[in-house]
Amino acid sequence: MTFKEQAQALVAQMTIEEKLSQMKHDAPAIERLGIPAYNWWNECLHGLARNGTATVFPQAIGMAATFNKRRMFEVASAISDETRAKYNEHKKQGFTEIYQGITMCSPNINIFRDPRWGRGHETYGEDPTLTGMLATEFVKGLQGEGKYRKVAATLKHYAVHSGPEGVRHGFNVDIDDKDLYETYLNAFAYCIKNANPAAIMGAYNAVNGEPCSASNTMLNEILRGKLGFEGFVESDAGAVDDINEHHKITKTYAESAALAVNNGCDLCLGWAFDYLMEAYEKGWIAEERIDEAVTRLFEERFRLGMFANDCEYDKIPYDVVDCEAHAALNLQMARESIVLLKNENNILPLRRDAKIAVIGPAADDRMILIGNYNGRASKYVTLLEGIQSYSKNVLFEQGCDYWKEPNVWQERKNNEALIVAQRSDVIVMCMGLNPNMEGEGDDDYSDSFSGDKRSIELPKVQKELYQKLKKLGKPIVFVNVSGSCLALGEQKQDCDAVIQCFYPGALGGQALADILFGECSPSGRLPVTFYASDDDLPDFEDYSMKNRTYKFFTGMPVFSFGEGLTYSDIVEEWTDDNTVKITNNGDYDTMYSVLQYEYIPHKSLKNFEKIFIKAGESKTVRF
Amino acid sequence: MTFKEQAQALVAQMTIEEKLSQMKHDAPAIERLGIPAYNWWNECLHGLARNGTATVFPQAIGMAATFNKRRMFEVASAISDETRAKYNEHKKQGFTEIYQGITMCSPNINIFRDPRWGRGHETYGEDPTLTGMLATEFVKGLQGEGKYRKVAATLKHYAVHSGPEGVRHGFNVDIDDKDLYETYLNAFAYCIKNANPAAIMGAYNAVNGEPCSASNTMLNEILRGKLGFEGFVESDAGAVDDINEHHKITKTYAESAALAVNNGCDLCLGWAFDYLMEAYEKGWIAEERIDEAVTRLFEERFRLGMFANDCEYDKIPYDVVDCEAHAALNLQMARESIVLLKNENNILPLRRDAKIAVIGPAADDRMILIGNYNGRASKYVTLLEGIQSYSKNVLFEQGCDYWKEPNVWQERKNNEALIVAQRSDVIVMCMGLNPNMEGEGDDDYSDSFSGDKRSIELPKVQKELYQKLKKLGKPIVFVNVSGSCLALGEQKQDCDAVIQCFYPGALGGQALADILFGECSPSGRLPVTFYASDDDLPDFEDYSMKNRTYKFFTGMPVFSFGEGLTYSDIVEEWTDDNTVKITNNGDYDTMYSVLQYEYIPHKSLKNFEKIFIKAGESKTVRF
Repeated sequence: MTFKEQAQALVAQMTIEEKLSQMKHDAPAIERLGIPAYNWWNECLHGLARNGTATVFPQAIGMAATFNKRRMFEVASAISDETRAKYNEHKKQGFTEIYQGITMCSPNINIFRDPRWGRGHETYGEDPTLTGMLATEFVKGLQGEGKYRKVAATLKHYAVHSGPEGVRHGFNVDIDDKDLYETYLNAFAYCIKNANPAAIMGAYNAVNGEPCSASNTMLNEILRGKLGFEGFVESDAGAVDDINEHHKITKTYAESAALAVNNGCDLCLGWAFDYLMEAYEKGWIAEERIDEAVTRLFEERFRLGMFANDCEYDKIPYDVVDCEAHAALNLQMARESIVLLKNENNILPLRRDAKIAVIGPAADDRMILIGNYNGRASKYVTLLEGIQSYSKNVLFEQGCDYWKEPNVWQERKNNEALIVAQRSDVIVMCMGLNPNMEGEGDDDYSDSFSGDKRSIELPKVQKELYQKLKKLGKPIVFVNVSGSCLALGEQKQDCDAVIQCFYPGALGGQALADILFGECSPSGRLPVTFYASDDDLPDFEDYSMKNRTYKFFTGMPVFSFGEGLTYSDIVEEWTDDNTVKITNNGDYDTMYSVLQYEYIPHKSLKNFEKIFIKAGESKTVRF
Repeated sequence: MTFKEQAQALVAQMTIEEKLSQMKHDAPAIERLGIPAYNWWNECLHGLARNGTATVFPQAIGMAATFNKRRMFEVASAISDETRAKYNEHKKQGFTEIYQGITMCSPNINIFRDPRWGRGHETYGEDPTLTGMLATEFVKGLQGEGKYRKVAATLKHYAVHSGPEGVRHGFNVDIDDKDLYETYLNAFAYCIKNANPAAIMGAYNAVNGEPCSASNTMLNEILRGKLGFEGFVESDAGAVDDINEHHKITKTYAESAALAVNNGCDLCLGWAFDYLMEAYEKGWIAEERIDEAVTRLFEERFRLGMFANDCEYDKIPYDVVDCEAHAALNLQMARESIVLLKNENNILPLRRDAKIAVIGPAADDRMILIGNYNGRASKYVTLLEGIQSYSKNVLFEQGCDYWKEPNVWQERKNNEALIVAQRSDVIVMCMGLNPNMEGEGDDDYSDSFSGDKRSIELPKVQKELYQKLKKLGKPIVFVNVSGSCLALGEQKQDCDAVIQCFYPGALGGQALADILFGECSPSGRLPVTFYASDDDLPDFEDYSMKNRTYKFFTGMPVFSFGEGLTYSDIVEEWTDDNTVKITNNGDYDTMYSVLQYEYIPHKSLKNFEKIFIKAGESKTVRF
């Protein structure tokens, strides 16, 4: 029997109450049918999350900056191995709580439309091709290629979802077909076609008036009709509840539940499906549609081998969790995620005998390593700790907080920073944001602007410290830590080196230090445009792509999409549109990403490939 | 000229406005007299605090647990070296902000009367002799023994101050002379006599109806009269404001300021002395008293060499800050601060090839290393990191939060802890409190019970995890992290080993691991009684010593004041009241503290001495 046939046979034995109970994220056991409880809600954005100790890879935006498809696949395979290993143990012990399952609410493949969006760092950046191709590798790595599925991947948030966070539960986006297909659905379409993801998560917002988790247009006409999706659809957490609470399209939870189910939502993360029975009894939902939804869900559970004795993934041992091989992969991913944007006066790599002042709120902060939707590592290496592993000659001062100015009771941190800076040969400034300042919930930085940030400027206290340090006239390596673009025009002009470090994972400090001291050459590239100022940005609520991203922005960015240096001297010679000879004329072996663009008519990424190329070597890449 | 004569000569040139301006913590410059601005408010409870990177030694209660006078002196000397080194640089650069000076609001020598008091971990415990003798070494180490003073020490909080935090600004303690002199003033008297501290800080509370910072009885009759104190008196921060705001003894700030000054307060931390001119103009304060106060303050500034060219401490170089020698001293202090309370079945030292499950919210938390009133370290070693430095065979799970129970969105951490515990040979549980749960401000743990804790029980989530882990039947090393007694009766009964780890400083995890793996023998002793339950405690607001501390408690403690094991087998043979032969019959070299008690008639610590004694060796200690 196929998985679908097995599911049909099982669902046929269920009462209507039993069927409806299975459409909720915390599906209870049906003991008479041998069905254990199962919680569909699980996370692994950049490592198994919220489920104890696990390998914490760089945040998604950092993994995008690697422009490395193969590495993304390797990381996703490691993640799914850890997820499965833990699940196998959970199953033995009878643990069926949230975050302990194998149906993952990852990846987030929304387009990072506006740099102020707090959740942008969960994405693969602003380009649909980069996003779609990397998501494809991520989904393949998660799902495996066996008879059964290793874990189930979910593409989210479908669709046209990118803030503002504060109004996400009731926001409507009116969008034309060009932007919809070219930008917002592009990566979904590519990944559905190439990776066969198990699930799609409907977004909180509405598109052209229809809430995404209950939209006939989005779920039936487009997703299943045009994009050929064959998996199951789940709502974002509480998205069905939102239909009456915030969208005000329905009046009751039962109406919302009926609207969602009737328009193609199979599984509810949240609570609105507690009212499914009421909706069913009122005749608002046909049993055939319920059978279809529950069958899709059980088809996936059969495909995941939950009821099988011969699932190859049941044998993945617990020892793979947080293992040394994954730590090595994590370090490599982190190294490739770091983007060198400027390097003058031979400032980098740093001399190992230099007296180094390491200054800034991000320098010794574990929080910036982990991003959000993260696991817990058994080992963290902060940026400072990484630098200290190379040099005994390090003076550290925090210098300022991320954004809080000292009150009358609090220390003046920048005084001490000035002192150590004066005593140093070179200043490594570790500034920027942390994931409390750009995220999903309320943030500290811009309190009334929930989750998002109001501005792409560095916070005032950091700017002031930067200005004071700059006046000393010492060489400066500026390490900007953030999950998004910040306005770095001054740094580009003033500093000897500028590095963009997206939240780089638990070993991120080691990776940064490996680059700072020349142990490896940087190879990351920007997956987002770095704009010069807030004035460059259209209204945050405007979803038109006009004047957004490298494709349509008409101004002058500080750093461009795709920008990123190595320590070597790489020359590309294109012999035709699809063939390029890469020559390393420099002194460093390095990873290098070749980007292939097309003009339609605007410049648009078509493909990319990352290679390792030794000093003096030439290689040919064919797309 | 003596420092006092120099001060008198300078004060004689000041206008009344200038004099009054100098009695505030942020004394402005008097440029016409060549007097720079100076901020009197600085902290160094266990390392220079709130002034950038510095060596972060164990919290005060942990330093007390070493029962080591010499080490306390060494640590205080290191602290004052770092403080001076930074001050020398601040002076050059013209920095005169809060926390940048050399008049330190440390040590806190209040008696840790009740284990619920949130600030108890800032003290040296429950015994006046231990407190007075260690404070004497600390003050001597801070102040130095040169022509000038290295930094100025302040004994606080004078007096009878130990919670509740929530009512501290208006609390009155009625106390009889026996408890007052035997317990609450004992350490102040000893330290004033033996270490000549520069200053005394008046407490927020009132004693027998008089607010301490404005009490003729406490400041004039007792402090200067009976105890012979000759330095200056400052108020706690805002304590003078409290006189009208909370004690309601006066109606206005001007009245409060006058009352404080007239009763012996020379310097105001806080804002009430902004009203000194009003009080003076109304004739409430005599100029002679103002001259006396300002002269005391300038005498101290002269004694600190602020106006001299030949101060030996001006030469202390910046390089001593956070230097390697201080790190080594810090590690040694931390090792000696850890108290082994039980060790059966040869569980400790741990076998280095054992598979170790490290579990608990304190295991990988930097916060528990630093206590409060702390500096910022350039290197932290968490308990987990210390253990990992000895073994590759470590499985880590947080297991639970300190006290928060997971909501519907949050992971069930204890499931993962159970899994790794099952896979281990031995479980090292790192549980207890962190400084957010017992402190000065509002705490997380017991929200409406500001700063203090409601109970000495382990928080419920930790108890539940403990019970689950215990059922596995694996050997357990229970590391209790807290700045105070917790009720560990179950742990004493169940676990193979129990260790009390007071907030152990930046390198505390290394120190703990050095002990766990037998690199050094433990030698700490408890500076407080570990009671069995909340039922053992008198009313928190009752300041009578009846049934409090090892001296007067009539019940059965779980662990007693002074308790603490080594890995060796030490025998004490007392030949008379003052002479004891110490023999090390065991296999480990170890530090060992000899405690001398007297019976007056209750058991009372009279003196103590810590020695290093090799395996097989005998030494004689004479008191």
